[in-house]
Amino acid sequence: MGQKVVVIGGVACGPKAAARLRRKDPEAQITIIERGPFVSYAGCGIPYYIGGVVEELEGLMKTSHGTLRDVLYFDKVKNVKVMARTEAAAIDRANKTVKTKNLDTGEEAEVPYDKLVMATGGAPVMPPFPGMDLEGVFTLRRPTDAEALRAKIEAGEADRVCIVGAGRIGLEVAEGLANQACDATIVDIAPQVLFGLLDPDMALVVENALRAENVVLHLGEGVKSIEGEDGKVTKVVTDKREIETDAVLVAVGVRPEVALAKAAGLEIGETGAILVDEYLVTSDPDIYAGGDCAENNNLVTGKKCWIPLGSTANRHGRIIANNIMGEKAKFPGVVGTGILRTLGVNVASTGITATKARELGFDPVYGLAPSGDKSHFYPGGKNILIKLVADAKSRKLLGIQVVGPGDVVRRVDTVAAVLTFGGTVDDLAEMDLAYSPPFGTAIEAVAHAANIVRNRIDGIAEVMTQKEFREFLETKLDALILDVRSAHEVENIPAPADGRCQNVALGDLRSRISDLPSDKETVILCALGQRSYEAVLALKGAGFNKVRYVEGGLNVFTRSASE
Amino acid sequence: MGQKVVVIGGVACGPKAAARLRRKDPEAQITIIERGPFVSYAGCGIPYYIGGVVEELEGLMKTSHGTLRDVLYFDKVKNVKVMARTEAAAIDRANKTVKTKNLDTGEEAEVPYDKLVMATGGAPVMPPFPGMDLEGVFTLRRPTDAEALRAKIEAGEADRVCIVGAGRIGLEVAEGLANQACDATIVDIAPQVLFGLLDPDMALVVENALRAENVVLHLGEGVKSIEGEDGKVTKVVTDKREIETDAVLVAVGVRPEVALAKAAGLEIGETGAILVDEYLVTSDPDIYAGGDCAENNNLVTGKKCWIPLGSTANRHGRIIANNIMGEKAKFPGVVGTGILRTLGVNVASTGITATKARELGFDPVYGLAPSGDKSHFYPGGKNILIKLVADAKSRKLLGIQVVGPGDVVRRVDTVAAVLTFGGTVDDLAEMDLAYSPPFGTAIEAVAHAANIVRNRIDGIAEVMTQKEFREFLETKLDALILDVRSAHEVENIPAPADGRCQNVALGDLRSRISDLPSDKETVILCALGQRSYEAVLALKGAGFNKVRYVEGGLNVFTRSASE
Repeated sequence: MGQKVVVIGGVACGPKAAARLRRKDPEAQITIIERGPFVSYAGCGIPYYIGGVVEELEGLMKTSHGTLRDVLYFDKVKNVKVMARTEAAAIDRANKTVKTKNLDTGEEAEVPYDKLVMATGGAPVMPPFPGMDLEGVFTLRRPTDAEALRAKIEAGEADRVCIVGAGRIGLEVAEGLANQACDATIVDIAPQVLFGLLDPDMALVVENALRAENVVLHLGEGVKSIEGEDGKVTKVVTDKREIETDAVLVAVGVRPEVALAKAAGLEIGETGAILVDEYLVTSDPDIYAGGDCAENNNLVTGKKCWIPLGSTANRHGRIIANNIMGEKAKFPGVVGTGILRTLGVNVASTGITATKARELGFDPVYGLAPSGDKSHFYPGGKNILIKLVADAKSRKLLGIQVVGPGDVVRRVDTVAAVLTFGGTVDDLAEMDLAYSPPFGTAIEAVAHAANIVRNRIDGIAEVMTQKEFREFLETKLDALILDVRSAHEVENIPAPADGRCQNVALGDLRSRISDLPSDKETVILCALGQRSYEAVLALKGAGFNKVRYVEGGLNVFTRSASE
Repeated sequence: MGQKVVVIGGVACGPKAAARLRRKDPEAQITIIERGPFVSYAGCGIPYYIGGVVEELEGLMKTSHGTLRDVLYFDKVKNVKVMARTEAAAIDRANKTVKTKNLDTGEEAEVPYDKLVMATGGAPVMPPFPGMDLEGVFTLRRPTDAEALRAKIEAGEADRVCIVGAGRIGLEVAEGLANQACDATIVDIAPQVLFGLLDPDMALVVENALRAENVVLHLGEGVKSIEGEDGKVTKVVTDKREIETDAVLVAVGVRPEVALAKAAGLEIGETGAILVDEYLVTSDPDIYAGGDCAENNNLVTGKKCWIPLGSTANRHGRIIANNIMGEKAKFPGVVGTGILRTLGVNVASTGITATKARELGFDPVYGLAPSGDKSHFYPGGKNILIKLVADAKSRKLLGIQVVGPGDVVRRVDTVAAVLTFGGTVDDLAEMDLAYSPPFGTAIEAVAHAANIVRNRIDGIAEVMTQKEFREFLETKLDALILDVRSAHEVENIPAPADGRCQNVALGDLRSRISDLPSDKETVILCALGQRSYEAVLALKGAGFNKVRYVEGGLNVFTRSASE
């Protein structure tokens, strides 16, 4: 008989560790203990099930060619025993057993192990609002929660849904609700969507896209209670308003499931997740931990972090299996990559934001680069806006945020690779990235952003931040403010500063350049900062020396405090 | 007065160097000498102009917001003098002047320089076929050539076009011709399309896609002559056949334009392009070279290479300008990234192929990974096939090839980044890449491919190459050959080996597993190698020990000698 390996948790890391171990060791006796009825499912697909894009919940539990990864599959195909609907109640580390209890029958058992894998995952944070127990209040802890919410929607009983939490899950579900023709209102106590993932200026682009799709956002508002009638939810009460609703989805965050580990005396890290070393071994050498219950090294900050992701969980599972086999496989760490789709825009980021970089004592310099995801002369291109952040002193790349309807994933993966190797903004700028008109621009969008950052570090960027522009408006009353948008655009979105702004469309600039005072301090505006940058170059070419443009343009200006 | 900088060549590197220099030095006197009438155009867009996807040739000469980058633009906006339709006839290095001749007026001049930039580009190879001068024979040397070809097509005078050369331009134009409802025949003396860019097994996928779209391919055929009547082309004669045609596009490759540099005594490198150091300085310290006329360091092979690309040319231009300003900006080199779109498939590669790796003395190990570009449960995903190559000894990544209708650019850019840092297959496998169902799979396609390579290096891949399978068919007459495709698929594309193959669809495998002999040597087949890999795992789980699958599956098998 081979070694006894027990895995607690059957969603991502656990089944991966089991399958990998089976591949390497035909003799091992492998048992997965899972609280729920399902095993090895794609939890990240749940928002798409709610939206009806994924038709059947079972789809999330199948292999890519349609085999259901259920208990029987693990038994017959993988020769892995799955104890479903079974709780791991306690770990006896001295005797190396796990005490289990079947949640349906109440049956208790003791399962012995040589090696134990903690893959207990994460769980939604349950905020202490009054009314959390009302009918029509949902969290997305398990696939069955999603089934219940979708059933309510499809029964026509949830035309209005209030989402508490403007994080990743909230925004993904908002898209799903739109697909189902439900009205969505999102409330969050944070002043922006995707707090932590995006800086405020980039979050604004997402907020504008959501509002354009009729999602109602109440940001910077704390929920006080959820109220109902006859046991059914009727409204969400915030510190500013009451929101009438048919259903509430509470998605205010997740936390690592560490109660069992804690009770067993395993060390918990500073992030609140289970402490592991680079081999994913816990403070007990016979116990591994991986997936959403374990913490990671952050390769960008050099600190421990807790970033629960299905992709990381899968990598953890493979490494744990290799190490159980006696290898010394190291998990290097993560760089903090995240991606999501919401109404009208894709959002991706990796590394750290400028805000976070400042908190950690870096000297962040960034560039905002609006780009197309095809060459401008090739039809069908979609826009993206990149914010690339680097450290001014070391020139090391710190992170990227990409938002827009276009191809964001390519850019974030490229930068994730550079961050993995501790590369600089110069490395990124000089990189040999793919170019052909249907796929991008000759100077790839991330390289363009890197060049902007380099110009700024080197002090030759003719750029003004949004904050500087606000100060400029207040203090430089004599300066020339030039709006190079078309007359049509100006009509739709008027320039700020009460008529002090002079409108000369970029196309007319050359012919009108001699009418402009070349000795005045000049700032140029457009919608996104791209045309105004061109205008700066034109004016400098014509002898204007004190000329800058406003980064991010008027699209970003509408936010009151963008930094 | 500032320094005098003369740039020879006005397409990509030259204008970029000029614009960057102007930005850094308002005083410099900058002159671009360009043989053609156009300056700063997107040469890579020419195939799309032929296909009508790009409607106007002028589109390739405009900035992203529609300003024409013509002589006037460079003069007024950039303060750069452009001498168009002017040939740089000779360089007098002793007196630091360039002798020029206006191609329209015949006017000659001597242009003095402090620093000279050679950006003379590349030119199509003109093969010595009889009949190259017939009416209806085209090359794509200049935008005007494309105009002539498109005019002929749109006049209905080129319903059949024969493309000589199955390289990048040939395949891009083939797509364009299909858009214009022309019949395309491609002839190449190489036995595969995209020779050098792809290994034969991956090229086969592209060939199948082209043939499925009714492109006729004659590979491994040398053109002997082009023939015509009344001075107009009528057919292409190869060593195997005569191809009747209305027009011929000769696109057999490019070569660096180095005649002027050679005549001036500048050193030419082993690749045939101008030798430069890491600062892009030629053998004359006052002369720089960049773009398609200059050679590069290859960061993967450590050797010099000549890979002409518009993206590289732009980076060169920036670096040259910085160095003219007295900086010591280094150009690190390239990794060999290329991408194109042709009928039905996207094709990208970076690094070196397995074939090239063997030539260079590496010990290449590769993995073929068919993947979707979204999670399998998320609708709308498209397939890609990845071939990832690493060196078995050092585990260093050597290259990737990606082919298919799905997202290839993301994968090639990620690997290009890893190659830049000399990363290993382990680095790639453990990388924190973006995952969300609309964008890919929890184990990203490139990480999956990396895991296959690692399994193979570590000797635990249950895989048989196509070549091994052919030998197997001939020698192991008693073995079990299991085809796990559906009955429907088997009907359409019969399995090889004359009835020796047993068909058990993967979905039925579990229920029929007890009918199969577990002690026999077994090989499993499917279309792409993905289901057969799953079947291997199932059989191994059921006690089959001598079981392998055929990598790449039957889709690759149809080629007679895939390696």
